[in-house]
Amino acid sequence: MLETVDLDLKLDRATYDQTFRPLRDRLALLQREIFERQIPVVVLFEGWDAAGKGDCIEKLVGRIDPRGYEVHFLQRASQEEALRPFLWRFWRRLPARGDMGIFDRSWYQRVLSERVNGRVPRDVWQRSYEEFNQLERMLADDGTLIVKFWLHISRGEQRRRFRRMERNEHESFRVTRKDWKAHRKYRKYCEAIEEMLERTSTPWAPWTVVPATDRRYSRVKVFETLADALQRRLGERPAAGPKPEGDGQVEVRTASSRKRSRSPALGRTVLDEVDLSKKLTAPQYDAELARWQKRLRELEYTCYEQRVPVVVLYEGWDAAGKGGSIRRVIGGMDPRGYAVIPVAAPQGAEAAHHYLWRFWNAIPKAGHIAIFDRSWYGRVLVERVEGFCTEDAWRRAYHEINEFERSLHHFGAVVVKFWLHVSKQTQLRRFEERERTASKRYKITDEDWRNRKKWDLYRAAVHDMITQTSTTYAPWTIVEADDKNWARVRSVRAVAEAMAARLK
Amino acid sequence: MLETVDLDLKLDRATYDQTFRPLRDRLALLQREIFERQIPVVVLFEGWDAAGKGDCIEKLVGRIDPRGYEVHFLQRASQEEALRPFLWRFWRRLPARGDMGIFDRSWYQRVLSERVNGRVPRDVWQRSYEEFNQLERMLADDGTLIVKFWLHISRGEQRRRFRRMERNEHESFRVTRKDWKAHRKYRKYCEAIEEMLERTSTPWAPWTVVPATDRRYSRVKVFETLADALQRRLGERPAAGPKPEGDGQVEVRTASSRKRSRSPALGRTVLDEVDLSKKLTAPQYDAELARWQKRLRELEYTCYEQRVPVVVLYEGWDAAGKGGSIRRVIGGMDPRGYAVIPVAAPQGAEAAHHYLWRFWNAIPKAGHIAIFDRSWYGRVLVERVEGFCTEDAWRRAYHEINEFERSLHHFGAVVVKFWLHVSKQTQLRRFEERERTASKRYKITDEDWRNRKKWDLYRAAVHDMITQTSTTYAPWTIVEADDKNWARVRSVRAVAEAMAARLK
Repeated sequence: MLETVDLDLKLDRATYDQTFRPLRDRLALLQREIFERQIPVVVLFEGWDAAGKGDCIEKLVGRIDPRGYEVHFLQRASQEEALRPFLWRFWRRLPARGDMGIFDRSWYQRVLSERVNGRVPRDVWQRSYEEFNQLERMLADDGTLIVKFWLHISRGEQRRRFRRMERNEHESFRVTRKDWKAHRKYRKYCEAIEEMLERTSTPWAPWTVVPATDRRYSRVKVFETLADALQRRLGERPAAGPKPEGDGQVEVRTASSRKRSRSPALGRTVLDEVDLSKKLTAPQYDAELARWQKRLRELEYTCYEQRVPVVVLYEGWDAAGKGGSIRRVIGGMDPRGYAVIPVAAPQGAEAAHHYLWRFWNAIPKAGHIAIFDRSWYGRVLVERVEGFCTEDAWRRAYHEINEFERSLHHFGAVVVKFWLHVSKQTQLRRFEERERTASKRYKITDEDWRNRKKWDLYRAAVHDMITQTSTTYAPWTIVEADDKNWARVRSVRAVAEAMAARLK
Repeated sequence: MLETVDLDLKLDRATYDQTFRPLRDRLALLQREIFERQIPVVVLFEGWDAAGKGDCIEKLVGRIDPRGYEVHFLQRASQEEALRPFLWRFWRRLPARGDMGIFDRSWYQRVLSERVNGRVPRDVWQRSYEEFNQLERMLADDGTLIVKFWLHISRGEQRRRFRRMERNEHESFRVTRKDWKAHRKYRKYCEAIEEMLERTSTPWAPWTVVPATDRRYSRVKVFETLADALQRRLGERPAAGPKPEGDGQVEVRTASSRKRSRSPALGRTVLDEVDLSKKLTAPQYDAELARWQKRLRELEYTCYEQRVPVVVLYEGWDAAGKGGSIRRVIGGMDPRGYAVIPVAAPQGAEAAHHYLWRFWNAIPKAGHIAIFDRSWYGRVLVERVEGFCTEDAWRRAYHEINEFERSLHHFGAVVVKFWLHVSKQTQLRRFEERERTASKRYKITDEDWRNRKKWDLYRAAVHDMITQTSTTYAPWTIVEADDKNWARVRSVRAVAEAMAARLK
């Protein structure tokens, strides 16, 4: 999930000033209501050293009622703590109803530094994922709201920050040899973080990864995520504390309403990073396509021999070229080895079962390839946007889907997931072309135009989908699809490379 | 959990005839309502070979609407199935909304025969517990009702049944060499079954262990459990299908009401097996007590040296002698090594946290002993009986408590749990004595008399508690406490033996 994080996100000072203050006020109001409703809140901050956990916490507690929170800064276990079960020190610090417990580092240290530094045996930290999920589930069942942040910076950024702190006479003590040692293990930590996010991002206690290169951005992101979570917990009703006179209450409530304007940086999605100018000329296309199709056929046979199952799925904007890409993938393959599975709205028995049922049914045999034209991600795309399922249901789905794909992974499957991305203009051009061309007219329906009007809702849904379900065992590939040549070669090649990587 | 099963439970024919028919009719009505409400139901039958799974299923499907169920008899994987992920064959057979899927053996084979016979590697079946819990949770979140039965018979009973089948010319084919091989591994299977029950009895899909020595008893038990589960799922409203004229509908609805009379065998609890005539004479008592107290002090020191934590808890009827027993346990011990923790109704901070919070806080240090006078089991005793928490909350608690004690176990703790059992008459005698004796009068309150009136409700709660939370790592000991001498020695000795067993 870290790969999808855009570490370049920044807020300029003007936008920050304009955004942050109303957000702080909104949070303060929400916290008051949480207190009145006696809801316990756990806010966890994990993240790289020097990523700014302390800064976020300082800002956070600077505005909310000091009687309502407690900050827990947990270093290594005290002697008392070392003699108790690992979770003891956290349990004793859990907030009472109406309180907010803010943890600067938490139980997750067990699967991060303690794991990386070999301070606990493998079976203990492996077991911890389940133990933590159960702890959080139990608290959530009891009414606790749990919000978890991972503050993320690059290795280079961490080095720069350490150096800067070392040069500052008041801060140099904060950078120790241990910190540099951890810094050198950046890659190893990344693995541990990925696994932690994959295993413990649950419907009842999801992680939010915060790009923390820019302090202003990360503060706003943290505040906004927390405020949204509090508000959702309060049942989507706007915060409405007691009304002191003339303190800008009205503006605050506007700020907390759903229509509040966002800075472009805050609204940025993984799709905004995509370089849609990528292109292949016709000769390049012919050569590359032939090369990768040939490779794919060889790999198809090897996968068959070695009984490796392959699951490929295509999601993407209408008219992004899913069909054409799929045709190129299967173009060179032996038809006995694959099946293309088109997915439409569930009908009959499909609709009468769990939404994953029809996809479980379609899992390929070991050695075979299944190519899904649309997929189980409908749950968090069309069903979310169109309100075909409840918010609870689609929020639950990220975890359910990750677990489903983990089953595929344990089964030995290669899982390749494509989002075919085109610009809004390209889509318009293709829609119009379809309407003009008799042989293509069947491809364009009123529904396509209706969907297009919901572009921004889909954009947000795609962003959440990709950031929540891009796992080490089933990563997303975003395909730049404004140029069809490029997109087709890209996806044939990605399938081949994923299969080759698995066979190694 | 198997140890608490009373395999001698029987129903005579008259009671059976009187009980079974209304139960069948009740079930048929409920099933109709389930169908109308479009609730999917999964019923799993696991159990020893020849325990009567087939018989139960036959009776079950004999009465309900054949359009509403499907029976899945899953032997070893077919070739198609072997090439798919393990859960595939089950997913495709999951019932649609309104249907009942009856599984004769299920995914649990992975952690039973496949585990015992080494057909899957350890990490695969270990991972399965979590995988199954997640599968069932996901189905439950989607609205599926899941009811799981383990049909239990003794090793001797299985042998008798195999022999009888072998002598019958029509049935002899049913007993294979494989069955006898499994029979010889009865002990090994028991371990696997225990672990399965402990790890996968969840609030959303609890196991029911059915004593299956007597067919009549086990049929009624299965039918009743299923009917109760259906009814609870329907929101406790009585079954109310379309009303055909004059078919005994009225009687049926009476049968399905909460007040229906039960056969004594069906109402039997683990407490009914307790032999309350056990006694020690005064000289026996003095000698035994001195012996075990001395042993306990030695063990206390060894546990301290070896940093083994010990958790002892006492639950029991009012006036069963908890205080006196605890005094004997600590009587010979070094006070620096233990703490007695009296537990009353939660107050202040205790009440403002999760119910387990105060117990987590009181976990002893490694090497120390904590003795709880009443405990976290209040959740499933007084809170259940008095309605201090919701039914959902106390049902959830069995799993939560098992997980809590599993944490203690992983921490290295010895966990000893006592239920001090006295007869209702003994309690009365002691209450009256307390009222007569000035120095004891403070011990008897109006609340004790009120609790006494709820004896039967507590009896049911104690039965559920003991059967649901007696685990290999934290078993219950029921102490026969009509004779105080016996009870006191029994509990001192049990603590000593548990500590000794851990130190070996």
